[in-house]
Amino acid sequence: MRPSGRAPDQMRPISIEPNFTVHAEGSVLIGFGDTKVLVTASVEERVPPFLRGKGQGWVTAEYGMLPRATHTRGSREAAKGKQSGRTQEIQRLIGRSLRAVTDLTALGERQITLDCDVIQADGGTRTASISGAWVALRLAVDKLLASGALTSDPIIQQVAAVSCGIYKGTPVLDLDYPEDSDADADANFVLLSDGKIAEAQATAEGACYDEEGLLRLLRLARIGCNDIFAAQLKAVGR
Amino acid sequence: MRPSGRAPDQMRPISIEPNFTVHAEGSVLIGFGDTKVLVTASVEERVPPFLRGKGQGWVTAEYGMLPRATHTRGSREAAKGKQSGRTQEIQRLIGRSLRAVTDLTALGERQITLDCDVIQADGGTRTASISGAWVALRLAVDKLLASGALTSDPIIQQVAAVSCGIYKGTPVLDLDYPEDSDADADANFVLLSDGKIAEAQATAEGACYDEEGLLRLLRLARIGCNDIFAAQLKAVGR
Amino acid sequence: MRPSGRAPDQMRPISIEPNFTVHAEGSVLIGFGDTKVLVTASVEERVPPFLRGKGQGWVTAEYGMLPRATHTRGSREAAKGKQSGRTQEIQRLIGRSLRAVTDLTALGERQITLDCDVIQADGGTRTASISGAWVALRLAVDKLLASGALTSDPIIQQVAAVSCGIYKGTPVLDLDYPEDSDADADANFVLLSDGKIAEAQATAEGACYDEEGLLRLLRLARIGCNDIFAAQLKAVGR
Amino acid sequence: MRPSGRAPDQMRPISIEPNFTVHAEGSVLIGFGDTKVLVTASVEERVPPFLRGKGQGWVTAEYGMLPRATHTRGSREAAKGKQSGRTQEIQRLIGRSLRAVTDLTALGERQITLDCDVIQADGGTRTASISGAWVALRLAVDKLLASGALTSDPIIQQVAAVSCGIYKGTPVLDLDYPEDSDADADANFVLLSDGKIAEAQATAEGACYDEEGLLRLLRLARIGCNDIFAAQLKAVGR
Amino acid sequence: MRPSGRAPDQMRPISIEPNFTVHAEGSVLIGFGDTKVLVTASVEERVPPFLRGKGQGWVTAEYGMLPRATHTRGSREAAKGKQSGRTQEIQRLIGRSLRAVTDLTALGERQITLDCDVIQADGGTRTASISGAWVALRLAVDKLLASGALTSDPIIQQVAAVSCGIYKGTPVLDLDYPEDSDADADANFVLLSDGKIAEAQATAEGACYDEEGLLRLLRLARIGCNDIFAAQLKAVGR
Amino acid sequence: MRPSGRAPDQMRPISIEPNFTVHAEGSVLIGFGDTKVLVTASVEERVPPFLRGKGQGWVTAEYGMLPRATHTRGSREAAKGKQSGRTQEIQRLIGRSLRAVTDLTALGERQITLDCDVIQADGGTRTASISGAWVALRLAVDKLLASGALTSDPIIQQVAAVSCGIYKGTPVLDLDYPEDSDADADANFVLLSDGKIAEAQATAEGACYDEEGLLRLLRLARIGCNDIFAAQLKAVGR
Repeated sequence: MRPSGRAPDQMRPISIEPNFTVHAEGSVLIGFGDTKVLVTASVEERVPPFLRGKGQGWVTAEYGMLPRATHTRGSREAAKGKQSGRTQEIQRLIGRSLRAVTDLTALGERQITLDCDVIQADGGTRTASISGAWVALRLAVDKLLASGALTSDPIIQQVAAVSCGIYKGTPVLDLDYPEDSDADADANFVLLSDGKIAEAQATAEGACYDEEGLLRLLRLARIGCNDIFAAQLKAVGR
Repeated sequence: MRPSGRAPDQMRPISIEPNFTVHAEGSVLIGFGDTKVLVTASVEERVPPFLRGKGQGWVTAEYGMLPRATHTRGSREAAKGKQSGRTQEIQRLIGRSLRAVTDLTALGERQITLDCDVIQADGGTRTASISGAWVALRLAVDKLLASGALTSDPIIQQVAAVSCGIYKGTPVLDLDYPEDSDADADANFVLLSDGKIAEAQATAEGACYDEEGLLRLLRLARIGCNDIFAAQLKAVGR
Repeated sequence: MRPSGRAPDQMRPISIEPNFTVHAEGSVLIGFGDTKVLVTASVEERVPPFLRGKGQGWVTAEYGMLPRATHTRGSREAAKGKQSGRTQEIQRLIGRSLRAVTDLTALGERQITLDCDVIQADGGTRTASISGAWVALRLAVDKLLASGALTSDPIIQQVAAVSCGIYKGTPVLDLDYPEDSDADADANFVLLSDGKIAEAQATAEGACYDEEGLLRLLRLARIGCNDIFAAQLKAVGR
Repeated sequence: MRPSGRAPDQMRPISIEPNFTVHAEGSVLIGFGDTKVLVTASVEERVPPFLRGKGQGWVTAEYGMLPRATHTRGSREAAKGKQSGRTQEIQRLIGRSLRAVTDLTALGERQITLDCDVIQADGGTRTASISGAWVALRLAVDKLLASGALTSDPIIQQVAAVSCGIYKGTPVLDLDYPEDSDADADANFVLLSDGKIAEAQATAEGACYDEEGLLRLLRLARIGCNDIFAAQLKAVGR
Repeated sequence: MRPSGRAPDQMRPISIEPNFTVHAEGSVLIGFGDTKVLVTASVEERVPPFLRGKGQGWVTAEYGMLPRATHTRGSREAAKGKQSGRTQEIQRLIGRSLRAVTDLTALGERQITLDCDVIQADGGTRTASISGAWVALRLAVDKLLASGALTSDPIIQQVAAVSCGIYKGTPVLDLDYPEDSDADADANFVLLSDGKIAEAQATAEGACYDEEGLLRLLRLARIGCNDIFAAQLKAVGR
Repeated sequence: MRPSGRAPDQMRPISIEPNFTVHAEGSVLIGFGDTKVLVTASVEERVPPFLRGKGQGWVTAEYGMLPRATHTRGSREAAKGKQSGRTQEIQRLIGRSLRAVTDLTALGERQITLDCDVIQADGGTRTASISGAWVALRLAVDKLLASGALTSDPIIQQVAAVSCGIYKGTPVLDLDYPEDSDADADANFVLLSDGKIAEAQATAEGACYDEEGLLRLLRLARIGCNDIFAAQLKAVGR
């Protein structure tokens, strides 16, 4: 029995509010239940030094959590003067995931930065970030296409992510915080709309798991990502 | 003529959405026009080292701006590894302003941290932060009173802040970004509901100003703060 | 009654020792009573990146306090690895104040940095810094004029600063440390020799103040700045 | 055809030189082909603050790479003043992997730190680190058992790790640097000697992969880890 | 021929102005020609953690250079966020030198920090710092003896330091900046008033030197230190 | 009687293992007894900014100690975010020492970085680093000569370093850790194969020393360096 009463393969309600802010080329407030992440996509007509003159663009991500997004206040990374290992690990994952669905050559010599800021946290902030980042990226690229800055679409397909875990012996989809802090294993899958896998990460927290467990988690993730793919399309009006 | 078409003594629409997040003891999304700041109040049952054992509490503030709150993306302070001078100046101002209306002895040995995070910026982020912080503080203290943790109210009165400036020779209230970047002088006033001044800061950016100019800015600020005081009371249901 | 026995509108003795060091283009040791600040003006034939190629110069300031300038030793900011919020706030204020009297276009594409290092502190270090910085800047610019590097004088007028405060209910001029640590309100005014105001900052520390209080502080500041203007002129031999 | 001429399921030669240094409680120089990592295990009779008084121990890891471990010299993290996101991600993974086979309560209130320093890099430094760390931990714990500081063995079983990847369309075991920089997908598996999985991470670098691909990589990892388990036992004389 | 016209064994004029600042327990402005260093001695009734409860005191030093102490402005270490290797090397040397003449047990559980801040630099800032630090320490200890906080004198003897070098083939005493930047070898000697050596450091900058050269430099240093010892005694009124 | 039973003028066994790693242009594992340092020489076809376009090269060094090179684990400098004063002092010394035997003009516009990483420490890590760095530099330069990148040899002669000290009243050569931590004076000499001195540093730790003591330490250093010179030549096959 899950604390929230959800079925093992049931996502929390997915909410996607596009164009949440006015300045960014793309922006979205995405919610997986009580987890809320604001994602903005910023287009800059320059690329990082290692790509200069190579005729391709770049997609990157930064991640942050507001100090009181969580149950008890955490310290502000800007005040501590450094980003934690967890923050860096997450923002590297988000960037890789979005690059997996972007044709960087078609993007041209420009960079799109996806800022994922967690307004409220209840488990699954990195997977909500990836799923929302696709929407923000889609909106920003649509603007580039509409303005004629881009003539062909560099976004190849959709990407979404969801967490799964083994909670009290049962594989379950989309862990919330009470489940996340008590799970035996915790996995994050980044899946593409063509069914391929961009990233699989499954970590034993208590008891280790076996091959069958890994596969059951992956299959739950497919169910969740299909829901997210549908919500993404609806949000961007496709 | 103001770019927005407002009268010289006209505030932008004030919006205050209390209880915007679920974990913080107090939270609010405050808007002065397109400027949107999320303020949370976090209560901790401890005080900073310099106050330990002195029988009083503390109210402090931190301020941040999401990288794409602005027209063009700014760098993330957590990634740069330090807070700018501007950020530190603003968070010190917010903390002082809220302490000006708090009886720290009545608060008891606990600290309330006001995190002011700018979601969207269009001028006046520090004044919106102060004005919103009072609401978040009020909500958090109401919770402490309701739970019996506090038996007398440590909040003495209301505090609000607004910017004014001399724009194309005319003193105007509540500068938005186009005015702010082009004003001859830029002032921030922090006023109390009893009419007293907690803080006055008036900086010449282009032409310097005189005593009469300073007074006219102050009088505009009174008009604006009265609007904010009313909106604050409505938001907290008083 | 002031701890020092001064009248409410009485400055501490102002001492200005020009050319205190040999290498800087301009240098001065300025004293407001026991507060002593060494200010040097360094001319560099380059401008910061944001001004390159714009046909104008820049005036900026840095501020520091020697660890034992104060009653008890403070930690060295270079050893802590960062400048405090207070330091940054002060150096931003000094820079703005001097730019208020400088025609940056007439200065040409060069930067003058005003380093204000507090040798001994007894209240009013930021106002002594601003007042001394004008002298150092004047001396450095005189050297540029004498050498023919500049043909017209970019310094438009004088700038000086002084603190005032409400001490035991009475507005007083030029707070020393015992007054500063016990004042109800603490203000800093940066005034120009033509009577205009470049910056006004008045902060309630205990009881808040009203419009009349603000004006009385401003009028005291005028008295003090007139003394400083005279001392500046004498020091630079005008 | 692999650049090294190895069969797809063939590990590079595994070398394990125990007791490589004299001061550490456990130490080992482990090699997977040209990848060489020095791992030391340091026992300290204290635990980190979050565990004080909880009657359990802690196992943690730090990771570093000598500047010229690689083909071209990289900058020294100590000189840059911060550890990269990659370094932090790796050391968190190593720590989690070793804790998966340690009974922290049986360890008692002491901490064992596993320092993994890459002397020479040719792909697979994180997996060699984990595999070597088990040997260093085993040697250090044996010393604690021999001295009577521990009376029961807190190490539950063996842990080892290996990388796999899809190289030119073929799943291969234990990527060396030429393969790693050119693979379509890159996975790291941390496996236990009872067959369970502690951690699976599979990242698409070029083409994304499918469920069958993930399973084939996992099966290769089992082959490699069995070789490592045997080499570990031989090195510690069991 | 030396640029300054001095004889090879001739010091620059030594100036020592004791009690240069009012707050520090001991303070001095020491000059070796145009090199001017402000040294303050701060007494604190606590010792660093590694000495707690060991019944002894500590003498330590910090060193800094004002940005425009030099011919061209250097960057401020507090603004850069770290002390250079040179700064750290010098402050370690100053601390060791003063500890060489202090009976730390007789000092009791207190720390004296010697802050050496270079106001103006013309070669020899580290040796002027050491020589001035002895004066500041002497003054501070005299205050502790006068107040009865100390009953026996922990200062065993005098310490002084001077630079020497091989300039255009000739060993010379007390290098100024033009000599220092052009010397073949540059040495610093820290000598005690009983004739012993606390520290000798001789570095070849151009041509290396031989044993005879080292001895000749040492003998010059003795001449210089004897002058400094006399000036120190006069300054402290002994 | 020395703890190790060595005669006062007896070095520990010197071991030099050239080409210890595969990627660096030169590499060596040098041992003075239980002190083991890995030195790599990395050639880069660029010079630091201050040398650009000056037609000469540069030789520099970095130094580090693995956290558990020592008897008890020290913290990792990369994790602390800064290099200690001791580290910086040592790496500056190593760089100066190697530049003393290199004709930087003959080297051409390239930089050779000597990374000295202490694998195991038992006293004398800086002197072993210098002595090993010469070998690594020699090997790297030999490769440049063999490839034709260099046509004349920029290495003028050999350089070696050794520590000496006054231990229980007796001058002894090549201090190991038990001697080092208990010596009255501790000296490091950097000598050239032509008999000249590149650097002499002698520090009193307990009792100060006299001119005779300094000379006796220097003479011991000559004995030790002659042994090292021979071992260096043998290692590089000359």
